[in-house]
Amino acid sequence: MTIAEIAKLAGVSKACVSRYLNHGYVSEEKKRKIQTVIDATGYVPSRQAQILRTGKSRLVGVILPKINSESIGGMVAGISSALGDRGFGILLANTENNVEKELRYLELFQQGQVEGVIFLGTLLTPRHRQILQNYPVPVVVLSQQVDYLSCVYNNDHDAAREITRELLDSGRKHVGYIGVTNRDRAVGAARRAGFLEALRERGIEIADEHMIVTGFTLEDGNAAAQQLFERAPKVDAVFCATDTLAVGAMQYIKGVGKRIPEDVAIVGVGHSRMTEIVSPRLTTVHLFYEDGGAEAAKMLLQILESGIDMKKQLKLGYEIIRQDSL
Amino acid sequence: MTIAEIAKLAGVSKACVSRYLNHGYVSEEKKRKIQTVIDATGYVPSRQAQILRTGKSRLVGVILPKINSESIGGMVAGISSALGDRGFGILLANTENNVEKELRYLELFQQGQVEGVIFLGTLLTPRHRQILQNYPVPVVVLSQQVDYLSCVYNNDHDAAREITRELLDSGRKHVGYIGVTNRDRAVGAARRAGFLEALRERGIEIADEHMIVTGFTLEDGNAAAQQLFERAPKVDAVFCATDTLAVGAMQYIKGVGKRIPEDVAIVGVGHSRMTEIVSPRLTTVHLFYEDGGAEAAKMLLQILESGIDMKKQLKLGYEIIRQDSL
Repeated sequence: MTIAEIAKLAGVSKACVSRYLNHGYVSEEKKRKIQTVIDATGYVPSRQAQILRTGKSRLVGVILPKINSESIGGMVAGISSALGDRGFGILLANTENNVEKELRYLELFQQGQVEGVIFLGTLLTPRHRQILQNYPVPVVVLSQQVDYLSCVYNNDHDAAREITRELLDSGRKHVGYIGVTNRDRAVGAARRAGFLEALRERGIEIADEHMIVTGFTLEDGNAAAQQLFERAPKVDAVFCATDTLAVGAMQYIKGVGKRIPEDVAIVGVGHSRMTEIVSPRLTTVHLFYEDGGAEAAKMLLQILESGIDMKKQLKLGYEIIRQDSL
Repeated sequence: MTIAEIAKLAGVSKACVSRYLNHGYVSEEKKRKIQTVIDATGYVPSRQAQILRTGKSRLVGVILPKINSESIGGMVAGISSALGDRGFGILLANTENNVEKELRYLELFQQGQVEGVIFLGTLLTPRHRQILQNYPVPVVVLSQQVDYLSCVYNNDHDAAREITRELLDSGRKHVGYIGVTNRDRAVGAARRAGFLEALRERGIEIADEHMIVTGFTLEDGNAAAQQLFERAPKVDAVFCATDTLAVGAMQYIKGVGKRIPEDVAIVGVGHSRMTEIVSPRLTTVHLFYEDGGAEAAKMLLQILESGIDMKKQLKLGYEIIRQDSL
């Protein structure tokens, strides 16, 4: 069964069948006719033949720092669903938080096996910029704001400011901070700045040594809380830059016999599943990870279709989730 | 820079450079020589050129039912790490729990874009069998046992039996069961059989209506617990086929004012992160998801290298995790 034969049976042009198979524009009526023929004949387009015919792989490279994380899993689910709807596949590159691997995959994906790249960056170095600015296929950056590429990112600054306002509304004055390196501009720098802005608004000061910078794990959160309370036993309100850090900190706080929220109020960012499971449930900010993934995929598809990359920057929303930890 | 030039500079044969670039056997000494030349000249093999030269894509298709799940995320991390070590990439197919999509991806991957497939199956129908038995590239099934293909799977039966023995060791007699459909042979049928075997050993009976079959979510676990306790208010021990179901059931049990473990003991299977976070911490069985993924990838690579598929079946181990829920 060839495209010509399908076209003949459906009574449409070959170009029309080709557009249909490549998810281009076809009128509803012609779609129905072509689909009827395909259903009746069991035609499956050979992917290799399709690539040779169109010069297009219909693959998108997705570069991510790790796969077994709830937020990243959500983003990939969104990407996969939006791309799958349009007949695109995902070529997955897991860099295991290794910047060298990240750069190597970026170089590899230049070699024509993918039509575009979605890049879930954490730390963007000058070398990233150098590679990405001259990239031969379109790139959309997901979860970090960059001004030299199309990107989809969370409103980390305002989300952190709003949840800190909630924390301060409880009337607490002795505030502690647990976060990550500023080199991560989204989770580190932006959330830190939002937190500090809310403090400034209320005229509340925080000593540098009450701001703990650590890694991303539960254990990091637990150890950071220990450090914080050893330095500042009077702390009665803790902002954590991620839910995972907050849940780790809660383990420490409950372990030393302090009550949440009576003795210590605590908030996180992200609204991960575990915030509903931990006791008390963690007050946090919902971020739209799955939608963000879908938006990045749609942005990339639009660039591929139109041939124009307008370097759009899509900032996502957020939503305060009031639970029981303050 | 061509392979011939690298060979000349390194003082080795072209075939040797080619084997090196394709991760075939090369002596340590020659490896060093070739790598020195590559480092000095910055040679990057074009992937497209490589595919044309070798006829091999160096890609493995990974078909999975969803991506944003902790256990599947762990398996993919293991697959990705083992394949990455050997220069293979992952072409990801997320079927969103849709059997039709699963079959469509299996058909798509026959068309030469991947060298092999790792298939994370949940429900394996006769149509799966029909496609998989005549598959043109090697397939390894992960997390389900099948006798007609190479596979890597958890010892679901014995893991469920052992954790049920632990549950019964607490002296409880009124046992309830929350699990999933038997059409999922691993999580459904095998865990159910292991549970029932432990009951038989102790001469404990369970009425059919105290065995609830539900879906896979927290909400399913919560609703199933409600159904169970409405039918059997005296139940003092609950086996759940997954940690997620157990945590959902715990929410219900705590919500109606019963104490865990004083009034009701409960166990799960899987040792997910949330079992450490929930209060009380859930007693469960550790399953080796990440190792399982790595083993499946290594099994596939061995088949690709040797050209022989011995249809090996690798059954993984398990480990009882005693926490605070019984």
